[in-house]
Amino acid sequence: MTKANVSAKVRSQAMAAREAARRLRGASTIEKNDALLAMAAALEEQSEAILVANQKDVAAARTKGISTALIDRLSLDEKRLSLVAEGLREVVALPDPIGAMVSMSKRPNGLEVGKIRVPLGVVGIIYEARPNVTVDAAGLCLKAGNAVILRGGSEALHSNVAIVSTMRDALKKTALPEDSIQLVEGTDRASAQELMRQTGLVDVLIPRGGQGLIRAVMENATVPVIETGEGNCHIFVDESADSHQAREIIINAKCQRPGVCNALETLLVHKKIAEDLLPLVAEDLRTRQVTLRGCSKCQAIVPWLEAASQADWETEYLDLTLAIKIVESIDEAMEHIELYGTGHSEAILTNDYTNAHRFLETVDAAAVYVNASTRFTDGQQFGLGAEIGISTQKLHARGPMGLEELTSTKFVILGSGQTRK
Amino acid sequence: MTKANVSAKVRSQAMAAREAARRLRGASTIEKNDALLAMAAALEEQSEAILVANQKDVAAARTKGISTALIDRLSLDEKRLSLVAEGLREVVALPDPIGAMVSMSKRPNGLEVGKIRVPLGVVGIIYEARPNVTVDAAGLCLKAGNAVILRGGSEALHSNVAIVSTMRDALKKTALPEDSIQLVEGTDRASAQELMRQTGLVDVLIPRGGQGLIRAVMENATVPVIETGEGNCHIFVDESADSHQAREIIINAKCQRPGVCNALETLLVHKKIAEDLLPLVAEDLRTRQVTLRGCSKCQAIVPWLEAASQADWETEYLDLTLAIKIVESIDEAMEHIELYGTGHSEAILTNDYTNAHRFLETVDAAAVYVNASTRFTDGQQFGLGAEIGISTQKLHARGPMGLEELTSTKFVILGSGQTRK
Repeated sequence: MTKANVSAKVRSQAMAAREAARRLRGASTIEKNDALLAMAAALEEQSEAILVANQKDVAAARTKGISTALIDRLSLDEKRLSLVAEGLREVVALPDPIGAMVSMSKRPNGLEVGKIRVPLGVVGIIYEARPNVTVDAAGLCLKAGNAVILRGGSEALHSNVAIVSTMRDALKKTALPEDSIQLVEGTDRASAQELMRQTGLVDVLIPRGGQGLIRAVMENATVPVIETGEGNCHIFVDESADSHQAREIIINAKCQRPGVCNALETLLVHKKIAEDLLPLVAEDLRTRQVTLRGCSKCQAIVPWLEAASQADWETEYLDLTLAIKIVESIDEAMEHIELYGTGHSEAILTNDYTNAHRFLETVDAAAVYVNASTRFTDGQQFGLGAEIGISTQKLHARGPMGLEELTSTKFVILGSGQTRK
Repeated sequence: MTKANVSAKVRSQAMAAREAARRLRGASTIEKNDALLAMAAALEEQSEAILVANQKDVAAARTKGISTALIDRLSLDEKRLSLVAEGLREVVALPDPIGAMVSMSKRPNGLEVGKIRVPLGVVGIIYEARPNVTVDAAGLCLKAGNAVILRGGSEALHSNVAIVSTMRDALKKTALPEDSIQLVEGTDRASAQELMRQTGLVDVLIPRGGQGLIRAVMENATVPVIETGEGNCHIFVDESADSHQAREIIINAKCQRPGVCNALETLLVHKKIAEDLLPLVAEDLRTRQVTLRGCSKCQAIVPWLEAASQADWETEYLDLTLAIKIVESIDEAMEHIELYGTGHSEAILTNDYTNAHRFLETVDAAAVYVNASTRFTDGQQFGLGAEIGISTQKLHARGPMGLEELTSTKFVILGSGQTRK
């Protein structure tokens, strides 16, 4: 397609989404739930066609020499697909956020001013080659009364076309318009750029993926964006920490799933506990194949550590590597986090009331922990239900975003003839 | 200044603001209120110097032939300045939003997950030549614990320099850093552009002013923006409306202050009430010097109306001009609003329960009214206290933004050694 054609196509999809969003605004919970159930059933019924399309993507990815981890994220099988369909049924079970009265007050002149929860309208999602996101995002957006425009990674195009056409076909048999869910089929940069610039038609864009993707969206979008993801997460082990508990938490935060944004990347250890704790932690992690890079003070205690450089403090490894630094005080720890943290998840392990309190109050991040693993930063774990992503910006939503974060509000004002003096 | 110098200067201001924001995060309500009171007192003490600076701006604006309305907004005198200072004292009286626990739940594994209100961090305000905004915005940002970077219109530069240096001097005698309030003194496009691109340092940018300004910010900013202002507001007079009440509300919405964003721009009248109501409304407005432009059906009833064109439906006059259209039904009215409204303030005048309910539910705007003037869309009128602007976007804040809209949240998680399975 030429650039002008790409533009026209994306624009017409955005307009169709806007129109669908109008209808969705007034959709009842029953209508939305029926649609989600129909989508889930259709994905299971059409599993064969979807898996054939997915195998095409996987074969092409292998030929291109794409990494095993990415191919794993791209791959679907009968079981994964049925888990994805089951995810839609879980969204059915979540309470509908729309229509809730957030506040209501009666003004001195008798005006009743209420604030009610309404859909955002049209949500754009730009993401990488993960077909499960196609379904998850569509389901959450729909339940919150939004039309969604999906733009997934090129490696998953066949899968996404099959999945989205299945979901749209399912919608045809429901009360909701099929244009509630649309896929941008262009996978070149121009199609993504065009989606980012649909001011007035797209209400918010949520990029989900690596740093490069997220930064490109923030740089180029004219529609509002919610920044997600990047997590250079720290644990600070204070002098008074329980040693056994600290070891368990560190192992969990680093090793349970190292490739995700809430995994531990740099461990900060108070100098007074370092001599006792560090050899144990180093051993715990070595046996779990974690590469350790420490400051010179760390190396003085555990000689076999690799030397950490400036770059290590800045890196979100997303891998079995950990940077370790010994600090003089909680202040040095918080200073380090202020400098290198990405505002995602930060934890203190301590038994000191004052330090716990100071850390909670001072550290500026989406999630600040005392005595728990950073791995809990997640919509399900926080009790929000399924999540659409984890926001690391401060506007609109911060931390895991569930259904409520896919909504807006409007003021409704009931009068009896009031005029302003 | 060269472009590189402008960049370096704005960047260093943003970094200083970031540093100030760190200190403000932990500031107590008492410290913030003391600072606001000190600023108010200083503005009154320094009134002579401020008014001299303002007269320089006003004289230059007159020479440039700037409109009387704009010069009026630019001009300060002893009384206006003391009202502005009084405004800061009113902000002292508002409750501090910071530190409130928004939600708290205990998860099945014993984790306590709370969400608390925290400052946004660094707020940038780009606005036109209105020195009162310099003080209002600084006061509200400070009370919500934010550092603010102000970038006002070039015509008000001398006034803004005098006002900001007065406020910063006042801060020196308080517990808060003077860099909590900063002014971008460059008034060329490069300095504004630079402010819009301080990703990682500026948390949100709020443009306040005309359409051109707001669109330029949305187009160019890489930091999150809250769109404000543009208001092509409608009143729909339904068949069952009380005629006397309708006339009062229309006069109020159009004439009480025509130059503001919540004023009435297009009147939609149900055909069944038009013949009785329209001649009265037309007369009401003619005697108040309002220019009226009507559709052909309107002209059939009130022959002296000017003819309305497509452009009239699209225009936010901000002046004593009103477009009028007769509609067949509430559906046609809502269709018109969907097409031409800017999502600001929309009203129905009716005594019909079903129609009132449908209008409230269907119309997609920041403020939707039944039987009241659109002029109430305002932070004070809605009971939010002083406002920093009126958001017409759906992300983060919609409608009048008070102190709470200048905040974010963070999750705090209290554990006792939990790890994720």
